[in-house]
Amino acid sequence: MINQKYKDRLSNKSVIRELAAYAQKRGKEIGYENVFDFSLGNPSVETPKEYNEAVIHMYQTMDSMSLHGYSPTLGNTHARETIAASLKKRFGIPYETKHIFPTTGAAGAIAHAVRAVTKPGDTVLTFAPFFPEYRPYINDTGATLEVVPPDLPDFQINFRELEKMMTPDVSAVLINSPNNPSGAVYSEATLERLARFLNTCEQKYGHDIFLISDEPYREIVFDGKKCPYPSRYYDNTLSCYSFSKSLSLPGERIGYIAVNPKATDADILVDIFGQISRGIGHNCPSSTAQLGISAVIDRTSDLSVYETNMNLLYDALTDIGFEVQRPQGTFYIFPKALEDNAVAFSKKALDYDLIMVPADNFGAPGYVRLAYCIDTEKVERSLPVLKKFAHEVYGK
Amino acid sequence: MINQKYKDRLSNKSVIRELAAYAQKRGKEIGYENVFDFSLGNPSVETPKEYNEAVIHMYQTMDSMSLHGYSPTLGNTHARETIAASLKKRFGIPYETKHIFPTTGAAGAIAHAVRAVTKPGDTVLTFAPFFPEYRPYINDTGATLEVVPPDLPDFQINFRELEKMMTPDVSAVLINSPNNPSGAVYSEATLERLARFLNTCEQKYGHDIFLISDEPYREIVFDGKKCPYPSRYYDNTLSCYSFSKSLSLPGERIGYIAVNPKATDADILVDIFGQISRGIGHNCPSSTAQLGISAVIDRTSDLSVYETNMNLLYDALTDIGFEVQRPQGTFYIFPKALEDNAVAFSKKALDYDLIMVPADNFGAPGYVRLAYCIDTEKVERSLPVLKKFAHEVYGK
Repeated sequence: MINQKYKDRLSNKSVIRELAAYAQKRGKEIGYENVFDFSLGNPSVETPKEYNEAVIHMYQTMDSMSLHGYSPTLGNTHARETIAASLKKRFGIPYETKHIFPTTGAAGAIAHAVRAVTKPGDTVLTFAPFFPEYRPYINDTGATLEVVPPDLPDFQINFRELEKMMTPDVSAVLINSPNNPSGAVYSEATLERLARFLNTCEQKYGHDIFLISDEPYREIVFDGKKCPYPSRYYDNTLSCYSFSKSLSLPGERIGYIAVNPKATDADILVDIFGQISRGIGHNCPSSTAQLGISAVIDRTSDLSVYETNMNLLYDALTDIGFEVQRPQGTFYIFPKALEDNAVAFSKKALDYDLIMVPADNFGAPGYVRLAYCIDTEKVERSLPVLKKFAHEVYGK
Repeated sequence: MINQKYKDRLSNKSVIRELAAYAQKRGKEIGYENVFDFSLGNPSVETPKEYNEAVIHMYQTMDSMSLHGYSPTLGNTHARETIAASLKKRFGIPYETKHIFPTTGAAGAIAHAVRAVTKPGDTVLTFAPFFPEYRPYINDTGATLEVVPPDLPDFQINFRELEKMMTPDVSAVLINSPNNPSGAVYSEATLERLARFLNTCEQKYGHDIFLISDEPYREIVFDGKKCPYPSRYYDNTLSCYSFSKSLSLPGERIGYIAVNPKATDADILVDIFGQISRGIGHNCPSSTAQLGISAVIDRTSDLSVYETNMNLLYDALTDIGFEVQRPQGTFYIFPKALEDNAVAFSKKALDYDLIMVPADNFGAPGYVRLAYCIDTEKVERSLPVLKKFAHEVYGK
């Protein structure tokens, strides 16, 4: 009597998690320092010491009920106020407490956002390449994920294909900038054009189309630039954030949804998210994490290592002869494999203890993703190995 | 385009949460110490200092990645091992790591358990009185909750009604002992009889019927007794636990599902739970909480205050002339209201700043729930007020 839907899914596990598990296993054989594990987006840099100190201070001084007691249904009020004030200051959008809903990371945020603004049978569009866990997040709501082909070579939005795929069934569009896996950052021009197009479609179809914006890499942008904030360009935007990458806290499961105050039903959407939590039995992230991020709201870990690693890898891959776009953010780089079949390529690389994720599941067959959220020293040691692999196997 | 299902639910908020919000608001007017707030099951006793000290030690000594990094898909391995070993020692069931799945409290545990062992259209039976949040947990999975009428006066199981309501559509039975709201603890005889009945039905219908056992109050039992552990009586049991009450940690959202090693598909159920998490975007409880409870696995808060409060209230209510069973555990007491309409009774009590939850939503109209997880001093001060209320309004 076990639910067959979930049983079937067992045979379709996350490729990323499988490769990460292989890397761990191989690490036990030859020492993990000798495995060039580019599989997992597990941040390598330290959580800011201010975060840990703030939590320690809370545990030393707060009473049990204030620290460990139930959060209100819609989340800790202080955390919601703090997030609203920070976003208002940074992006000039007049968020209030009522627009903020703390979630268990961006995963929880996206899953809630999709449940709130779609109904079973609706279509959600996203853009290749995309994070493959979007499939379970969306398909489990009863909506259907459809993937707009990539915009080559620079991984902005393929508007010609988007226009073809837009139908009255589309009630939400899901974007991710800075993008996992491509490292692309949507330009202002891209976001403006997307907003114009969605506004036109809303008029034409006579219903809302929500933009669900997945933004865990918002603070990891290179060359001193900033990531354009999608909600500034389109009112019906639900910004889904996670502190996993900016504060190196992925295990704490803490993020939020910020509802644009001009969105349709902006005043009740957070209440709707609360109702969704009731149904799946997940009432708020941990109180420690909500209070912890409030204490360091505008800080980040020292993220500069990611830019250092990116430059090392980009230069080396280009030298070797890979086709690759220079990432503008995130901690991923996304070269074309040296043969058409990226799965075969990735498998051959395992012989060199190079762990790269083939991007077939990301909607971009032929590419591989390297997550360089690892020590720079290891990136440096990986470069001659990459070169050797490309030379010996592909004659580069 | 907001999902109408959730919008409708806004008008059907938790009565408990609404009354708790009223109590807070009233507290701002007259001082919260003057509001006899029996609404919410928010534990009043301190979290054991060993828990806070263990977390502080972790934050002072562990590296970022081990403390704040992603948990494996199925939860932190050390936490799972620790929970398995503790349950094995306490209850003599040979749990292994693979049988334990950390969850965000008992709510997350129940919602996962139901998703795993039912399919849309199935029936889940539970027994009145029951925690009203079971409705959203179960109805959101597509299964239907049906409620077996209460066994009066002592709130064990009404087997005559259970037998009438059992059909081949029933794929899970949900119990809660010690019981919220009645305070009843299922006896060994009750659990043995339930197991016999379910085994017979499994044979008759040719399919599994899982027992989902909601056990957040397992450690809060009075008169020096222990709560019989349901999984010892029936193999197809999924034990859903929360540390919210035993360690006073409800805000941390930490609990687990323990799969009986003899259950059908016991070796893959935890994998199934992992797949369910993928679909709703909730990958494990916070790493801090998983490690924290591992450090104090067999400890509890000082729970003796609940027994003190129970005796005070039980004696007073009995003296006043309430019909009431003496609770065997939990921190709830469940008297019959002094008029047939418990909602009207509860409303009249508000004039005396007595906040009691009418039990219509708990499947036991005519009763009210008092949560006495509050200071004993406040319970003592409430007694003359209860007496005055009963006298002035009901001539008791």
